[in-house]
Amino acid sequence: SVNPDLASERQTASFSVEKLTARLDGGAECTRLRRAVVEAIERDPVFSRENQYFQSQNERYEAAVRKGVHLQKKIHEMGWTDNGPEFKYIYRAVAGDVAFLLHRIFARSILLLGSDEQIAKWIPLATQYQLIGSYAQTELGHGTYLQGLETTAVFDITTQEFILNTPKISAVKWWPGDMGRSATHTVVFAQLYVQGECYGVHPFIVQIRSLQDHSLCPGIIAGDIGPKMNFEHIDNGYLMLQNVRVPRENMLNKFCEVQPDGTYVRRGSQKINYFTMTTVRISLISDEVIIPLMKACTIAIRYSVVRRQSKLKPGEQEAKILDYQTQQEKLLPQLAAAYAFHFINNYLQELFDRGYREIQSKNFDTLPELHAFSSGFKAMVTQYCTSAVAICLQACGGHGYSLLSGLPSLYTKILASCIYEGENTILFLQTARFLIKCFMAASAGQPVPPSVTYLAAVTPGKCPAKNKLDFLSPDIYTEAYQHMAARLISSTAAKLQDLIQSGVKKHDAWNQCTVQLVQAAKAHCHYITVKNFAETVEKLETQAGIQKIMKHLCDLFALHGIFSNAGVFLHDGYISGAQIDMVTASYLDLLAVIRKDAVPLVDAFDFTDKSLNSALGSYDGQVYQRLYEWAQKSPTNKQTSPAYERYLKPLLHNTLSKL
Amino acid sequence: SVNPDLASERQTASFSVEKLTARLDGGAECTRLRRAVVEAIERDPVFSRENQYFQSQNERYEAAVRKGVHLQKKIHEMGWTDNGPEFKYIYRAVAGDVAFLLHRIFARSILLLGSDEQIAKWIPLATQYQLIGSYAQTELGHGTYLQGLETTAVFDITTQEFILNTPKISAVKWWPGDMGRSATHTVVFAQLYVQGECYGVHPFIVQIRSLQDHSLCPGIIAGDIGPKMNFEHIDNGYLMLQNVRVPRENMLNKFCEVQPDGTYVRRGSQKINYFTMTTVRISLISDEVIIPLMKACTIAIRYSVVRRQSKLKPGEQEAKILDYQTQQEKLLPQLAAAYAFHFINNYLQELFDRGYREIQSKNFDTLPELHAFSSGFKAMVTQYCTSAVAICLQACGGHGYSLLSGLPSLYTKILASCIYEGENTILFLQTARFLIKCFMAASAGQPVPPSVTYLAAVTPGKCPAKNKLDFLSPDIYTEAYQHMAARLISSTAAKLQDLIQSGVKKHDAWNQCTVQLVQAAKAHCHYITVKNFAETVEKLETQAGIQKIMKHLCDLFALHGIFSNAGVFLHDGYISGAQIDMVTASYLDLLAVIRKDAVPLVDAFDFTDKSLNSALGSYDGQVYQRLYEWAQKSPTNKQTSPAYERYLKPLLHNTLSKL
Repeated sequence: SVNPDLASERQTASFSVEKLTARLDGGAECTRLRRAVVEAIERDPVFSRENQYFQSQNERYEAAVRKGVHLQKKIHEMGWTDNGPEFKYIYRAVAGDVAFLLHRIFARSILLLGSDEQIAKWIPLATQYQLIGSYAQTELGHGTYLQGLETTAVFDITTQEFILNTPKISAVKWWPGDMGRSATHTVVFAQLYVQGECYGVHPFIVQIRSLQDHSLCPGIIAGDIGPKMNFEHIDNGYLMLQNVRVPRENMLNKFCEVQPDGTYVRRGSQKINYFTMTTVRISLISDEVIIPLMKACTIAIRYSVVRRQSKLKPGEQEAKILDYQTQQEKLLPQLAAAYAFHFINNYLQELFDRGYREIQSKNFDTLPELHAFSSGFKAMVTQYCTSAVAICLQACGGHGYSLLSGLPSLYTKILASCIYEGENTILFLQTARFLIKCFMAASAGQPVPPSVTYLAAVTPGKCPAKNKLDFLSPDIYTEAYQHMAARLISSTAAKLQDLIQSGVKKHDAWNQCTVQLVQAAKAHCHYITVKNFAETVEKLETQAGIQKIMKHLCDLFALHGIFSNAGVFLHDGYISGAQIDMVTASYLDLLAVIRKDAVPLVDAFDFTDKSLNSALGSYDGQVYQRLYEWAQKSPTNKQTSPAYERYLKPLLHNTLSKL
Repeated sequence: SVNPDLASERQTASFSVEKLTARLDGGAECTRLRRAVVEAIERDPVFSRENQYFQSQNERYEAAVRKGVHLQKKIHEMGWTDNGPEFKYIYRAVAGDVAFLLHRIFARSILLLGSDEQIAKWIPLATQYQLIGSYAQTELGHGTYLQGLETTAVFDITTQEFILNTPKISAVKWWPGDMGRSATHTVVFAQLYVQGECYGVHPFIVQIRSLQDHSLCPGIIAGDIGPKMNFEHIDNGYLMLQNVRVPRENMLNKFCEVQPDGTYVRRGSQKINYFTMTTVRISLISDEVIIPLMKACTIAIRYSVVRRQSKLKPGEQEAKILDYQTQQEKLLPQLAAAYAFHFINNYLQELFDRGYREIQSKNFDTLPELHAFSSGFKAMVTQYCTSAVAICLQACGGHGYSLLSGLPSLYTKILASCIYEGENTILFLQTARFLIKCFMAASAGQPVPPSVTYLAAVTPGKCPAKNKLDFLSPDIYTEAYQHMAARLISSTAAKLQDLIQSGVKKHDAWNQCTVQLVQAAKAHCHYITVKNFAETVEKLETQAGIQKIMKHLCDLFALHGIFSNAGVFLHDGYISGAQIDMVTASYLDLLAVIRKDAVPLVDAFDFTDKSLNSALGSYDGQVYQRLYEWAQKSPTNKQTSPAYERYLKPLLHNTLSKL
């Protein structure tokens, strides 16, 4: 039975939860398909995540391999094809908890970087799992800066082989998933040397384990890198190469080749390839970042209407903690952010689909803009959502700190997204470089890409809002964000120019501006997110109930941003102190309004109890009962600890030589 | 051998590291004592923390009990007494990694709340470990709000016993340390009922496990609450009571008693008791909050001069990542904060020692101020340091995410400090209540405690700084913080009064101001911290080298706060936009200055490699070698996973019915 404190929250929804779910999915048919996939997976006991919080790294790995193998059967059984409509829901349904994700990257990299012959040879083997692939790029000493990789591949003209080596400890491959214990093959990125000359980093297919008995191949030292904050189910591995020889054909050679006589040939355009790599950053946003935040919001908000603590009014029953303004201020902005990022993600997907089509027709004009988008938004969304999940966790007090709440694992997993696929600070700086370039061009009257045309019109101005209600106008706050982003970009560009003109070398000048450049890039992404949210709300007009609550969330997202970063809006007087007071008043008013729909708004995310895997967040709100029942299953309650016989008993029985 | 990239950092220190260490310890003699304790503990293999990152919850618990038992012997052996000078270093030396911490709280609560007879009976048993105690206060349904506890203790006049019960699931005791698997006794907090009347929450000593065979006593259901983000070594437990009878003498009755005829008697003053409870919040700041931040800074900063990535100047060697402005901006403010909080902690310790003496001489005047201090600073320091450790972790990229870096466990442990001993938001609101009261009193011309006299003189004014160097004057920035804190308190007080005068009920008005009240309380604590740092630097005059670098850190701490919270300084025009630009310029200049001493500044914290337990943070900077060696010891490399025979082999050998 549903806890009455949670049930009552659902009776007063101002909109249709089912319709909002369909809107989030992209239509009722998509919702139906998604639910069918989720149900098929969750009904199958092999995919159960029960007891996951009790498992060791070894157990998690074994389970992930079991699920990974079973998933292939399941996909076949269900008739879900790679290009079918169900495919994109599978990852959500298994909650990422499977092995062989890097096997997919292995195959993708061959499809991208391999010649037709290489594709014809390796792809069927990968598809049929006659080998298990991995992708060995990062090293102990190098992550984001690929040019610095130290692994070497020297062409031996006499045997027509490449000889791969790990010349020093910092060159040991480190982190590749599926490599520590599973993979038989991997794509190794190494510095190519031909006749003493270095040609930079190239990819080589290397077998690392026997297909017969899985033993390590000669010259290969490999293993697992040990415990991490999360991803215990993945065997992130290390790899050392000692004079490992692979045939000349194993260098992926779509774009460049070493010919038998040692001639190095580069061919074709790599642009489409670079583009595909940047799309990876966008593709991870939904599954690895937004969905975890939506889950965290669901758990924290449901718990906050079930948890009663202290009294709001003397003499009354203890209050639901979501009725406290401070709790609303913790959680509701995160809820608004989840919606804001869902919509910006839709926008980015469309942008990249369009970009892909243009690039296929050999129009590369949009590439710099798309690269700037993918870098900045990957960094901005991962950082924002990571903080948001941490807030949700802390907002649940002690119970949030229990692994059984599900929140710790959401946090430790989303945290990794700030690091992988490009470290966020470096990504922000790439976006900043694009913005500075565009600002310079715009200032010189040259054309700039559509997303940055606003940089052409940086003017002083003042925010025209006269009272707190004016700040509920999207024009007012979008304009404020635009002004603020343009100011940060233009003032940093000015600082950069001043430094250079005063004789500071270009690279030093750049370094001295990087703190502000990062700030400017964030501001730009924040502005685009607010603008896109407001435009999305506009388009919802036919569905009145939904439009109204989405408008509130959009306002909240925007005003929360101004309230929390008031300095950058006040700095040049665009917004005055009195106007910040109006923003604050409207912001706090919105909390009380949205609070009423908080539970329906997280219900609309439509997570099953199994996918939340949380004692605090289940649909029925039976929080305490579930915490109690789940704790019983903990291995700490399954056996008497040897500590009693060994230490406690002698202590208590005074048979230990006493103190 | 020390990595040359780390060694070179130590050759250019602008001050004597050894002297700074002595200053931090409170004198060279204290340093000597601390090192002796640390050495005695670390030399003893029982206390080894090797392989800790690989252990399961069960293994961690067993190790903590082993260490807890052994520690008692060690203390005896070494002649360290409870009141001796060595005692306070023990906890740091074992890195908190022992059992029986709640046993100490058990004893302390009897000393505080028990009568002389009760003390005479129980304390020797506890001291001699003839029982193991715990402290059962929080329940599934109640944490910080103690009045809401639901466990009942009904006095049975016929048998002269209390009958304890857990009336519903939310009343199950939950979280008490040492209770899940170790404790034989606990102090249970329960609502006292005598002849149908409820007298509120009282403490009762209850035996929960047999002293003979450790089996649960009749009517007791108890166990472990399962996995948590950290504290795997502690058996946080649950407890249900079913008609458990304890004799009348088991209610701790220093302050109140149920007499044989059922008469309830309250006696004496509890004030000193309340005071002692608030001191717990202060006492945890050093060991549980500041030391972990110092460790995180040590690890991240040492790693950042060993890690080289990308190029600052074209054509040169890859740069140390600490040479990037963005990396400095991540880490150096956290380093400055570690020093700021070390000094504010010294200040608070002195304040509380003085307060304790006054209270012992029956002067209770300082109690409200001390309570406000303990609440606000506990909340402010834990929250600030938790964010700071998260920044250190993320600043180390992928390797920071490995448990072997030591950073994840520092983070997951410090995070708990935001929740235990009072949830931070509630604590800030208690400080805010005090501040509002003082502001009202000051406005009415009444006397207020010394720390808040500044509230009497809230004036508009403008910051007099004319260039960036002016912002290196402590008078300038301390005044700015003071102005800002006073403004936030006075404006929130005004809003509160306006709401009440417009007819909003007092408790509703309060709730509607809580977001701003929290902000005001934080601002007050931030101001006091800056002021105290500046005053501490003043007093260092005889030690020139140290004073100079501490002055830089103080400036950095203060200017970082203004840079990051510019809005509250700009709001009423006290600081102008142009002045914020000066702050920013000075702030960024300071980063480059302090960067030169970054390694000596963390060396001065004087952590041994064993206490850091980090592959990234060791004194010798052999980062990659250590990551590699430690990974070898992981259980994931110690056995072949059954996953191969069960799943991978059939898949690869095509004996699984293929896809």
